[in-house]
Amino acid sequence: MSDESGITRGRATAEMVAQRANVSRVAVSRAFNPHTSLKPEKRDLILRIAQELNYTPDRAARALVSGRSHLVGVIVPDVCSHWESQEIDALTTALQNEGFATLLFKTRTDYSMDEKLLAYMRGFNPDSVIAFVENVKPTTLARFLDRAVPIYVHYPYPGEADDEEAGPLHDRLNVLQRAGIEQAVALLQGYGAQRIAYVSGLGKSRANTAREQMLRTVMAERGLPPPVIAPSDYSYDMAYAATLDLFRIGQGADAIFAANDVGAFGVLDALRHELGLRVPEDVKVVGFDDIAQSHWKSYNLTTVKFDLAERVRALVRLILRRLNNPAAPALQETLQTRLVVRGTVG
Amino acid sequence: MSDESGITRGRATAEMVAQRANVSRVAVSRAFNPHTSLKPEKRDLILRIAQELNYTPDRAARALVSGRSHLVGVIVPDVCSHWESQEIDALTTALQNEGFATLLFKTRTDYSMDEKLLAYMRGFNPDSVIAFVENVKPTTLARFLDRAVPIYVHYPYPGEADDEEAGPLHDRLNVLQRAGIEQAVALLQGYGAQRIAYVSGLGKSRANTAREQMLRTVMAERGLPPPVIAPSDYSYDMAYAATLDLFRIGQGADAIFAANDVGAFGVLDALRHELGLRVPEDVKVVGFDDIAQSHWKSYNLTTVKFDLAERVRALVRLILRRLNNPAAPALQETLQTRLVVRGTVG
Repeated sequence: MSDESGITRGRATAEMVAQRANVSRVAVSRAFNPHTSLKPEKRDLILRIAQELNYTPDRAARALVSGRSHLVGVIVPDVCSHWESQEIDALTTALQNEGFATLLFKTRTDYSMDEKLLAYMRGFNPDSVIAFVENVKPTTLARFLDRAVPIYVHYPYPGEADDEEAGPLHDRLNVLQRAGIEQAVALLQGYGAQRIAYVSGLGKSRANTAREQMLRTVMAERGLPPPVIAPSDYSYDMAYAATLDLFRIGQGADAIFAANDVGAFGVLDALRHELGLRVPEDVKVVGFDDIAQSHWKSYNLTTVKFDLAERVRALVRLILRRLNNPAAPALQETLQTRLVVRGTVG
Repeated sequence: MSDESGITRGRATAEMVAQRANVSRVAVSRAFNPHTSLKPEKRDLILRIAQELNYTPDRAARALVSGRSHLVGVIVPDVCSHWESQEIDALTTALQNEGFATLLFKTRTDYSMDEKLLAYMRGFNPDSVIAFVENVKPTTLARFLDRAVPIYVHYPYPGEADDEEAGPLHDRLNVLQRAGIEQAVALLQGYGAQRIAYVSGLGKSRANTAREQMLRTVMAERGLPPPVIAPSDYSYDMAYAATLDLFRIGQGADAIFAANDVGAFGVLDALRHELGLRVPEDVKVVGFDDIAQSHWKSYNLTTVKFDLAERVRALVRLILRRLNNPAAPALQETLQTRLVVRGTVG
């Protein structure tokens, strides 16, 4: 039987399927696009007959005609970072429902690699690309995109140099961090924290700069001295080491704000398991992201959340809006943050 | 300037690039394939000129000729599960180095979704597909692949019904669990464990069945009573609840073997933070996977490891071997497991 091997076989045409299924040619193409509506029985019938005839719509061929690849490129430095893996998971599900597939590209934060990888990515001719400024600048990315208008996740902060407006056309998801960070600082202050340290993310990361600047601004507004900066890189291990330095070499702190939840886990483990300090009694800890692990009993972390589902919906909206109107000026979506209170402050 | 917008522009040809760069037509195509060797200066020159001329090799067009899409489909139930996200991350890096891109497809473990998703995946005409039996059966998958021979990750165990041999052509990565599980049981026995519980993975998961059966076999060989089964689903929350049931409703255990590390974290937190038991003094815990989080101080988990780098190398070898010889009979690679001893047994 033809199932005995995966080697190339002949191709049937959509017309043959339509005829056998006694449906229109249009119904056949609709059946293969999860995004279009079609009676379930009808879709199942068409797909079953398509299988019998070994028919499949060839996207490579279709892409040449339609100029649509149905691929959405996602440029990430680290697929397995907790936050990113959760975002990619939700995004892939949402894109599948819209008839797109997620194409992963891993870039180093070291720019030198990017151009070679981007030249390579360009060949796949993605319909859209989601990127972060710290990984690839809009001006660089634009040179490698034939039609896709990239989407950048942006973290506006007070007094930032907004060089991007001048750059090539790109759409934006703006994540507003103020609300969540303000709530976090207010809670720490409410429990008497005076000396607040910031265990940072990667130095060159825009998100990190934005987070630190917003924290500075909010603390100044609330009459607190500027945060003590403990340089880290978003990783558990570096945050762990940075916390040891903060207390063994530096003056310590009575509260620590970590640039992300994974870093906060490193902070908590360093405080409890190596410095013998109690959380929240001796030191209060706040994270950023609210990843799935943050509710684990060993951490039970108080953290600033941006809603993953909302974030993914906003990204998908940007993709669809852009595809419907390729010539539109820069599109924007906005996302709020809020504090999720658990056991590490109190 | 042409960088000011991402909207469609004209296409240059490889010949134009070759001429301007004063290199051969072949050198141009090599420059766009990360896998081929080319003097860095030469590649950079060609890529720079290609950018100036706005040239890009069109994979869609090329795919029609070569029959190669340079896409590798990965079918996963859950991108953000710790183990899978780490595997996808490493796999994406390795594939990029070989000139392929990772195409993600999320399937429910509920088969009903699969056929629609697969018909859709088929349109992308991947060069290879990596799958797990619990997500899609080889006979099902074969119907949706025109040329790709899928790769299945397989966990052989004593007395399994080897129905797959009969199925359509597919390649295999065999993960041999015996060595690591034997070492784990021996260590538990060495520390006097008698009543060992197994906090399971998802019931329909082949990996889970294989793990449980191998554990049974090894325990029987070593003269231990069969494991007490605490049904779970690989998740932290279910493992946490299953552990509470094991001790509050069931007879408890002096050692727990979890089907994966994330489950083991749930077990540890339930024992320590809700049941007030000490690990390893009162209960010993072993996990499976050795994900990055397992060395975190709050868990510091003793676990059965299969080497991620080795595993990815084996998968990439299978892909390349198959592409070089599409008609070859079923290919196989084998991977060993071993125990990593940390703080939860002793």
